[in-house]
Amino acid sequence: MVKKVAVLTSGGDAPGMNAAIRAVIRAGIHNGMKMYSVFEGYKGLVEDDIIEVDRTFVSEILMRGGTILRSARLPEFKEPAYLKKAADNLKSHGIDALIVIGGDGTYRGANDLSKYGINCIAIPATIDNDIDSTDYTIGFDTCLNTIVQAVDRLRDTTSSHQRCSIIEVMGNKKGDLALYGGTACGVDLILSREYYPDMNEIVAKLRHIRMNRARHALVLVSENLVPDLNEFAKTITEKTGFATRVEVLGRLQRGGSPTATDRILAARLGVQAIDVLVKGLENQAVGIVNNKLVSNPLEEALKMKKSSGIELINVISTLK
Amino acid sequence: MVKKVAVLTSGGDAPGMNAAIRAVIRAGIHNGMKMYSVFEGYKGLVEDDIIEVDRTFVSEILMRGGTILRSARLPEFKEPAYLKKAADNLKSHGIDALIVIGGDGTYRGANDLSKYGINCIAIPATIDNDIDSTDYTIGFDTCLNTIVQAVDRLRDTTSSHQRCSIIEVMGNKKGDLALYGGTACGVDLILSREYYPDMNEIVAKLRHIRMNRARHALVLVSENLVPDLNEFAKTITEKTGFATRVEVLGRLQRGGSPTATDRILAARLGVQAIDVLVKGLENQAVGIVNNKLVSNPLEEALKMKKSSGIELINVISTLK
Amino acid sequence: MVKKVAVLTSGGDAPGMNAAIRAVIRAGIHNGMKMYSVFEGYKGLVEDDIIEVDRTFVSEILMRGGTILRSARLPEFKEPAYLKKAADNLKSHGIDALIVIGGDGTYRGANDLSKYGINCIAIPATIDNDIDSTDYTIGFDTCLNTIVQAVDRLRDTTSSHQRCSIIEVMGNKKGDLALYGGTACGVDLILSREYYPDMNEIVAKLRHIRMNRARHALVLVSENLVPDLNEFAKTITEKTGFATRVEVLGRLQRGGSPTATDRILAARLGVQAIDVLVKGLENQAVGIVNNKLVSNPLEEALKMKKSSGIELINVISTLK
Amino acid sequence: MVKKVAVLTSGGDAPGMNAAIRAVIRAGIHNGMKMYSVFEGYKGLVEDDIIEVDRTFVSEILMRGGTILRSARLPEFKEPAYLKKAADNLKSHGIDALIVIGGDGTYRGANDLSKYGINCIAIPATIDNDIDSTDYTIGFDTCLNTIVQAVDRLRDTTSSHQRCSIIEVMGNKKGDLALYGGTACGVDLILSREYYPDMNEIVAKLRHIRMNRARHALVLVSENLVPDLNEFAKTITEKTGFATRVEVLGRLQRGGSPTATDRILAARLGVQAIDVLVKGLENQAVGIVNNKLVSNPLEEALKMKKSSGIELINVISTLK
Repeated sequence: MVKKVAVLTSGGDAPGMNAAIRAVIRAGIHNGMKMYSVFEGYKGLVEDDIIEVDRTFVSEILMRGGTILRSARLPEFKEPAYLKKAADNLKSHGIDALIVIGGDGTYRGANDLSKYGINCIAIPATIDNDIDSTDYTIGFDTCLNTIVQAVDRLRDTTSSHQRCSIIEVMGNKKGDLALYGGTACGVDLILSREYYPDMNEIVAKLRHIRMNRARHALVLVSENLVPDLNEFAKTITEKTGFATRVEVLGRLQRGGSPTATDRILAARLGVQAIDVLVKGLENQAVGIVNNKLVSNPLEEALKMKKSSGIELINVISTLK
Repeated sequence: MVKKVAVLTSGGDAPGMNAAIRAVIRAGIHNGMKMYSVFEGYKGLVEDDIIEVDRTFVSEILMRGGTILRSARLPEFKEPAYLKKAADNLKSHGIDALIVIGGDGTYRGANDLSKYGINCIAIPATIDNDIDSTDYTIGFDTCLNTIVQAVDRLRDTTSSHQRCSIIEVMGNKKGDLALYGGTACGVDLILSREYYPDMNEIVAKLRHIRMNRARHALVLVSENLVPDLNEFAKTITEKTGFATRVEVLGRLQRGGSPTATDRILAARLGVQAIDVLVKGLENQAVGIVNNKLVSNPLEEALKMKKSSGIELINVISTLK
Repeated sequence: MVKKVAVLTSGGDAPGMNAAIRAVIRAGIHNGMKMYSVFEGYKGLVEDDIIEVDRTFVSEILMRGGTILRSARLPEFKEPAYLKKAADNLKSHGIDALIVIGGDGTYRGANDLSKYGINCIAIPATIDNDIDSTDYTIGFDTCLNTIVQAVDRLRDTTSSHQRCSIIEVMGNKKGDLALYGGTACGVDLILSREYYPDMNEIVAKLRHIRMNRARHALVLVSENLVPDLNEFAKTITEKTGFATRVEVLGRLQRGGSPTATDRILAARLGVQAIDVLVKGLENQAVGIVNNKLVSNPLEEALKMKKSSGIELINVISTLK
Repeated sequence: MVKKVAVLTSGGDAPGMNAAIRAVIRAGIHNGMKMYSVFEGYKGLVEDDIIEVDRTFVSEILMRGGTILRSARLPEFKEPAYLKKAADNLKSHGIDALIVIGGDGTYRGANDLSKYGINCIAIPATIDNDIDSTDYTIGFDTCLNTIVQAVDRLRDTTSSHQRCSIIEVMGNKKGDLALYGGTACGVDLILSREYYPDMNEIVAKLRHIRMNRARHALVLVSENLVPDLNEFAKTITEKTGFATRVEVLGRLQRGGSPTATDRILAARLGVQAIDVLVKGLENQAVGIVNNKLVSNPLEEALKMKKSSGIELINVISTLK
């Protein structure tokens, strides 16, 4: 059986990463393994920034945002020289397996590294919910609640001034933050990759709101979708009469103490990652699908496609 | 098809009830139905406190805790005279169907009423997560986060004074609030119906914590479980040396603006309740099982048994 | 004595405006006055959007952000025709006095209007704390806490990625939000009108942090201060080696349920405004100076100069 | 000049104590002093649990509730043997001065210790705001906001069920938490040492609310005031018809990340305590009076009497 296991976080940080680190290390020790921490993701692997840790290392971190293991991006981590160095460093410590916590890029790095004889297990953690082998990623729920709180605040001022606010949220290549966040906030219009009405429809909708229903409007937009948000706002103003303002929520969406749901998901997936090792599986991506813990070969996980938010789009168009 | 539909909330209130009321009324209107509100639950039904409402009736309520339809308990609402009066009142308005939002007792009332010719659809909303025909109820996620925030606060003072805090949470007949809440908070010990070690084991565990690991301890306990919490605390103090304090979180667990998860669940289940009517089904309990919307005959739903938290107990014992 | 009193909110909205409206209306009724609401600030005054209200009009608004009276800007409200129309409308209702709740521009409007025979009392409410006749304005404390929460979130991700984050806060012509907010957050550097080191000093400081003390840095900057924040960030990156990101907190700083301090200040100032009328004073600006309620002639209030944050700058330079 | 300074926290913990510790230690180092931490208050002084610390010791603690120096009660710390041992321990480290952070009991301990040749400076930190030599104590503002959030939650359920909720808050021997908290929450009735109507008046008021104004009521009560709250609630139910529930907020009032106001007050008072030492003063209590930093001889500070909340009682009776 696997005896020595290292853990790292990589890519954009997400609330709940610390809860996942805690779960992995405690579950490993519970199963008699020696546990190691790698700092700054794949960079620390290549630079041999690896230490053995005990269970007190992860005391009092459960409720903290960010990642105590820190994160970094290392674009070179696909070149053979880097991958080999990383694998050699792990082997020099006698480490059999590596658990990586992160998003899409982290998964690819783990998959590449697995070719060099390291058993890699991946845990999904990103606010963007853009990993196709799991229904939900660690950090998504906290980010949704951060968006809800920000939009609830913006509603106060938007409504007092009878404006239209266009609010940009993150999401990377998926619209989940916009679709789920927009549903949770009851905004008037959501624009995402999965649901993007043309300009005439947008204008008609906002005009209708202005004339018939209310004197303010909230629009939630996925990042990297509308080419120029300020131009977009100007057009809205001209065509609807709404004084329109753009708000970019930015990186505060990445932070904060994780919600109950993210802490529990992190606990479950951390324990699951160790269970997968105990069962003797290799190179797996763990996740949660239909409310059940799953594990898929990393290679296959990277090829999966999930269709997100379809049912939600029906809910959204029914309620507005 | 159903033309006129009434909606009410009943039993203990839960965050997200307003979001569910909004979804039901908007989805009904979207489907061409006339929508009615009943105030104070079954009491308002018997007293004919019923009005027709439009979509502006539910503006700006999505983010508010409690229920704008108010709630009340009416223990007599199982006697034929009351049930018949309620059904007659609905019929006098020409109302074909009733959507009830609440917990176990609410479901029973709806089932009884259905015998008097009213098509009743039940939506699960209770902080206790104790409805067996759904994995999650509206309000559970908000309550978990309220518990997490309260316990995070209590940890500050418990740790500063190196005490043991015994914290009572709600949950009615289920331990879900204790099990999920305890996992989310990383408490040292959870006592619930589903997981209740004997006193020797409890003492051994707390002694071990005091001697070896830390100088404070957090214990989460389901309500109505330990006969006398103050006596229990005294025993802990005597046998472990910990200065021990009891905290009862109380009804603040019922309030607050709903989380993103509860708002989205409310939107989905509200739309689903109307869909069920559109499809011509009768006397159904809607819910979410394995992350999919479901609908079961009300009669059957009341007989279901779900085993809650089993997997979580494994996670809990692994991490502690 | 004054018998009929109107109230309005004007300019940028601030949390606690509703609490102030509630206090004014309840205190007026308590003193036997008839109370009127004006909608959309001076615009509503000119358009005669004025109604009599009772104490239930302000039920359940204490905890809500924004302003139920709405706000609007009317740049023409200094031209005699507009001022006369406003005064005439008030007189046509028999209204003797007007209480305005807002910032600097609101005060000027009130002062201008007072020349047309309307007794105007001004209550300071703006997140920017830029009214010189009061130590604190309603909304400032809530905004500070919003900034604290946002920066606490940004610290998570800034620290995980070992970056430098440059965070822009509001404040209009005063640096109070940056100075108080920066002190509360313990940021590494504050740039405001009152405290603005030159570029060499900034670079030296951040370099020192990067080399000696920590691997991340937080900088808080007042709005409208640095000509181009993105250029500024680029310079920081080049000269210090820190990966630097700009975050603009934006209008969410205006929203949210008011803090205890803002609610209490709003209650005190609302009661004070009515007291001033009961005492027979005219054209006053109420405020709080050295923790005592004060009242100054509006004309004089507009000429006052307070030196803000001097003592705080000493605290800041001692702690960093 | 003073060269070596120790700091401790004592008594009940309060949010902002960590911010005060940070300010004291950083301001001391800034002034060229060697700084020492004492753990567990006066107990650690007697047991010589004292270490020298540097500025990184207080990194990342500003935003955390509780106290990293921990706290403990030592009732014997007035007996000469204990006081002498404490003074001897400090002298053995060459420590010239001690800064204590806490409440009333902490001040008394410092005053007693000063007789044994230790220069003691006291910083007021307690949620109860019951130190007479300062207008505000560190922790009071955070606690008020915790109460506001809890009462806002309880309002949801109280209103949904049309009940009367009697909510007990802390405050020790002062009614400030009830008076300020009640004003901030707009409750219907406040009972405190400073304002306690007789039972007939209470009943008349609640009856009036039930009959005329609203269908729910919120009552805020100081701890240790009403002999038996459950009996009290029963009487209310019998005499007013309100279903009445008792809620005890408990120790969660002690925890939580400090508010902006408490963090800033802690920064100012921490710097002030060191300034007092730099100026060569001895045995002082620092504080804030009329928004200005003050310093009084400890002996005199203990004899001061402030009349709290008088003006607030006028505000409260005007608004209700």
